[in-house]
Amino acid sequence: MRKLAEHNIPLREASITQVHSVLRDGNPLIVHTSMFANALASLANPKQQQQWVPLAEKNRIIGTYAQTEIGHGTFVRGLETTAIFDPETKEFVLHSPTITSTKWWPGGLGKTANAAIVMAQLYTQGKCYGPHPFFVQLRDFDTHHSLPGVILGEIGPRLGINSQDNGYLRFDHYRIPRTNMLMRHSQVLEDGSYVKPIHNKLSYGTMVWTRVAIVHSCSKKLACAVTIATRYSAVRHQSELVPGKPEPQILEYQTQQYKLLPHIASVFAILFSASSVLRMQRNVAASISKGNVELLPELHILSCAMKALSSQDSTQGIETCRLACGGHGYIASSGLPSLYTSTTCTITYEGENTVLLLQVARYLIKSYRAGLEGLPVLPSVMYLTAPSAMHQSPPLSNQALIEAFRISSANLVKETESRLCRQFNLEQNFHYAWNRCSVALVHCAELHSRYYMCEKFLSTVESIRASDRVRSVLQDLCRLYLIHHITLNQGHFLRSGTLSGVDLSTLEEEMYELLAKLRPQAVPLVDAFDFRDELLGSTLGAWDGRVYERLYEEAQKSPLNKTDVSKAYHKYLQPLMKSNL
Amino acid sequence: MRKLAEHNIPLREASITQVHSVLRDGNPLIVHTSMFANALASLANPKQQQQWVPLAEKNRIIGTYAQTEIGHGTFVRGLETTAIFDPETKEFVLHSPTITSTKWWPGGLGKTANAAIVMAQLYTQGKCYGPHPFFVQLRDFDTHHSLPGVILGEIGPRLGINSQDNGYLRFDHYRIPRTNMLMRHSQVLEDGSYVKPIHNKLSYGTMVWTRVAIVHSCSKKLACAVTIATRYSAVRHQSELVPGKPEPQILEYQTQQYKLLPHIASVFAILFSASSVLRMQRNVAASISKGNVELLPELHILSCAMKALSSQDSTQGIETCRLACGGHGYIASSGLPSLYTSTTCTITYEGENTVLLLQVARYLIKSYRAGLEGLPVLPSVMYLTAPSAMHQSPPLSNQALIEAFRISSANLVKETESRLCRQFNLEQNFHYAWNRCSVALVHCAELHSRYYMCEKFLSTVESIRASDRVRSVLQDLCRLYLIHHITLNQGHFLRSGTLSGVDLSTLEEEMYELLAKLRPQAVPLVDAFDFRDELLGSTLGAWDGRVYERLYEEAQKSPLNKTDVSKAYHKYLQPLMKSNL
Repeated sequence: MRKLAEHNIPLREASITQVHSVLRDGNPLIVHTSMFANALASLANPKQQQQWVPLAEKNRIIGTYAQTEIGHGTFVRGLETTAIFDPETKEFVLHSPTITSTKWWPGGLGKTANAAIVMAQLYTQGKCYGPHPFFVQLRDFDTHHSLPGVILGEIGPRLGINSQDNGYLRFDHYRIPRTNMLMRHSQVLEDGSYVKPIHNKLSYGTMVWTRVAIVHSCSKKLACAVTIATRYSAVRHQSELVPGKPEPQILEYQTQQYKLLPHIASVFAILFSASSVLRMQRNVAASISKGNVELLPELHILSCAMKALSSQDSTQGIETCRLACGGHGYIASSGLPSLYTSTTCTITYEGENTVLLLQVARYLIKSYRAGLEGLPVLPSVMYLTAPSAMHQSPPLSNQALIEAFRISSANLVKETESRLCRQFNLEQNFHYAWNRCSVALVHCAELHSRYYMCEKFLSTVESIRASDRVRSVLQDLCRLYLIHHITLNQGHFLRSGTLSGVDLSTLEEEMYELLAKLRPQAVPLVDAFDFRDELLGSTLGAWDGRVYERLYEEAQKSPLNKTDVSKAYHKYLQPLMKSNL
Repeated sequence: MRKLAEHNIPLREASITQVHSVLRDGNPLIVHTSMFANALASLANPKQQQQWVPLAEKNRIIGTYAQTEIGHGTFVRGLETTAIFDPETKEFVLHSPTITSTKWWPGGLGKTANAAIVMAQLYTQGKCYGPHPFFVQLRDFDTHHSLPGVILGEIGPRLGINSQDNGYLRFDHYRIPRTNMLMRHSQVLEDGSYVKPIHNKLSYGTMVWTRVAIVHSCSKKLACAVTIATRYSAVRHQSELVPGKPEPQILEYQTQQYKLLPHIASVFAILFSASSVLRMQRNVAASISKGNVELLPELHILSCAMKALSSQDSTQGIETCRLACGGHGYIASSGLPSLYTSTTCTITYEGENTVLLLQVARYLIKSYRAGLEGLPVLPSVMYLTAPSAMHQSPPLSNQALIEAFRISSANLVKETESRLCRQFNLEQNFHYAWNRCSVALVHCAELHSRYYMCEKFLSTVESIRASDRVRSVLQDLCRLYLIHHITLNQGHFLRSGTLSGVDLSTLEEEMYELLAKLRPQAVPLVDAFDFRDELLGSTLGAWDGRVYERLYEEAQKSPLNKTDVSKAYHKYLQPLMKSNL
């Protein structure tokens, strides 16, 4: 924070990089500097921004974003907190009518924040207009005491990120001025009349921004994990590759290479796809400023797809890295447990992955049907009704594999759409039919998203400016990524007829060759991520490889090691050992 | 412990059930009552047992099992701790020559145990005979102080099970009597001469026993997780299945059914396979007592396979259940985080899964080659060279699916063996060739093991004594399990030609029907696991469904909620908020 001020960096611009470098076990100010600042900028009108943004930048106001309730997450329209306009006093009355309406989860809400942007059901002139954002002071700006009518606290221990004070919040007929409604898009006038927003979807902006930030942070966490596990695998010697010979580095084992190298590749795949979404976001922002919102759904869907896949991939990748370090990966000082516990939550927050993938699927089905009817569809989904033929590229070349992906994805969407039609004929209700097909629909969304990531990885590597040697390593990594994900999804390729069993055997053989070829690059690749030891915070992953000494030294710090005989001995163990049972 | 004494249950018999009911966050006495007791029984000779077992049963001795070293896990022959026989004093001198030879991990070693069975390289008459077990006193039996020459402590915080005091241990030329070597199998006589064991593999017993105990405990943990997630999914209402209609129970969503029901099935699959391994263990024990050790390798391999698959399945299943509860699954009071952190370690301990699966694969390849040469092979792998034909059973019947599994597994072993031969021709070294095929070999082991589990699930359900209604539900669960695992492994079935793309579509359709059919059984099924609320320890999974009230009540207990304004405000936040940066 001090650094930002010294370098005169505005809060909002700083926040996307801040999300990257956040302490892994959570920072109580992170929501203040990222979501709160961002939401204020996009939801408050200019006058409101003038009023609150300077105070937020000077940390007089420390804010959080209170949307989720204990009984309501994904489905924002289901929120129960009410904001009823009282025309007499020109105030909104905030109230939590039920236990399920308790705001729950916001970071920093428990003890840190003194204000929040609160989403509540807006009622005026006897009518409900759905959830709207309000700026709400929660604590006295001088004493930090919670204000009357505001009941709040911390939600208790969690799997990880326990240095963040996630909080809960209830209102008891708590009054705020009318002008605290964030009025950039909708307004309630003094007489209580409601003015609706010009465009419904403009508030997508914050969500897209937050999701791209998550994708970036996922790639960074995964990069930390592969750095730790790869370095450890070069230090650890175990078992005999050849009986009687010295124990080799465990990185010599193909099974270990298979656990690590695809996830090193995954870091690049996530980063490159995120960059492409960011580029699109800039284009869309430029179009919107010219009044063109046409590309907004495409951006929204891609941000959903990337958030879902990258959170899944990085969580699984980190866990694979942790397990690849054997027992030592279970020790907190390895750094791997907190990487896992602080990344797995990205699967759930800012749109639960299954829900996001079903939104992607809805877009795929809609676009497929539009394409069939000859209606215009947006670029990323044109292939669904016009997949290119297979024979244009040399067999099993990168381009051929991307085509196989495209055809398999189009094929899966087509089959699932037929299934949806059949279900609709049975159920006579689109929503029931949709639900009955939803597992298959999630598969569609996953395959399409994976295709997008593979395509972005490949096109980036092909256009990257780098030395021949660097490019060659990146090409190998990209090839490994393509083949690895094809083998993981081989059923789709076999069923679409784009690859045969023999093709897959050939690709598998090539994948094993690539593992051996890339093995000498593993340590240089993770060194190139260039994490300082202080940031990695790992006994297993430090640059100098002093693994066992560091583990032993860290163990000495255990509170239990302060005395030879622990208190528990006298209290519990001695009576048990001396009893005559 | 008191209960055992009251009911006069010997320590060793109690331990397998004890492993089940262990507190989830770890019990410092668990290694004493399970592995230590078991190892003493199987490694000590009768005289030694007379000396130590009564003391262990009365808890005068509290023991642990110290094998793993900080630099040596899986590869026992690589252990560095030495036990050098001194014929002058008739003592062994235990020593830790390097930092990597530090004993590391044993449960209870840090502060609880006063003795350990220590595995060390036995040297006598100038020759090394490899790792052997020794009974070693570590702490004074009266004062509990660590003894001179023994350096020990706790290894520090971990991802989970932090109420267990996992420890480290070093010896500085520490002397123990010759008679402390556990001499049931090998001996060192007074003059220092070494007597080797009659049968090398008899010490497998403890490992098999421990692995079966792990399999049982995995099924129990998974059962807890599905109970919590299923009950929560019946309480939680979210989103709109049909626009405008009330929010349904999330268990109505097919994607949620798909997350939970296959794991409910998995509990049964793991339990039934474990029972079959236990039955085999009893048979093998009976045979061994008649001097027949022929079936021992089969038992060893099956216990490896079951430990690997059940630890993997239960860990992934618990995590799927946790994520299926959305954000609330991340809260400690849900019980799900500790179920995960206490189960994931079973992937690593008592034989790391990849290592175990490669042992299974070695057995498969060996048996396949033996079968080809007409040599006798053991029952579980006869199918590799004599798979039954496909056409004997009605298409897509359970029996046909099991046959498809068998043929696909045999096919994969056959292809991998050919690959191994090709690699051998290239490398001219079996071990390098083996390593170059090891990812494929792991796949062989996984498919074979999955086939075994499916087969045991089916044969148990077919022979179970139950009412028609109960049997019918179990049959549906078993069918779901079969189809689910076939879809997950569909590449193998398509490539072996046992199932076509159309078959798979038909099976998928049936799977979706089964999800809908089993949905009303979900809550009764988990209720039937009959966990008391006290054992589940979950705000989300309690029997009465008071989810939100319990979450809110638990939150009040957070230490941060003792005061409205926290200390951290005065110490850190106020200076930041009032500063002029």
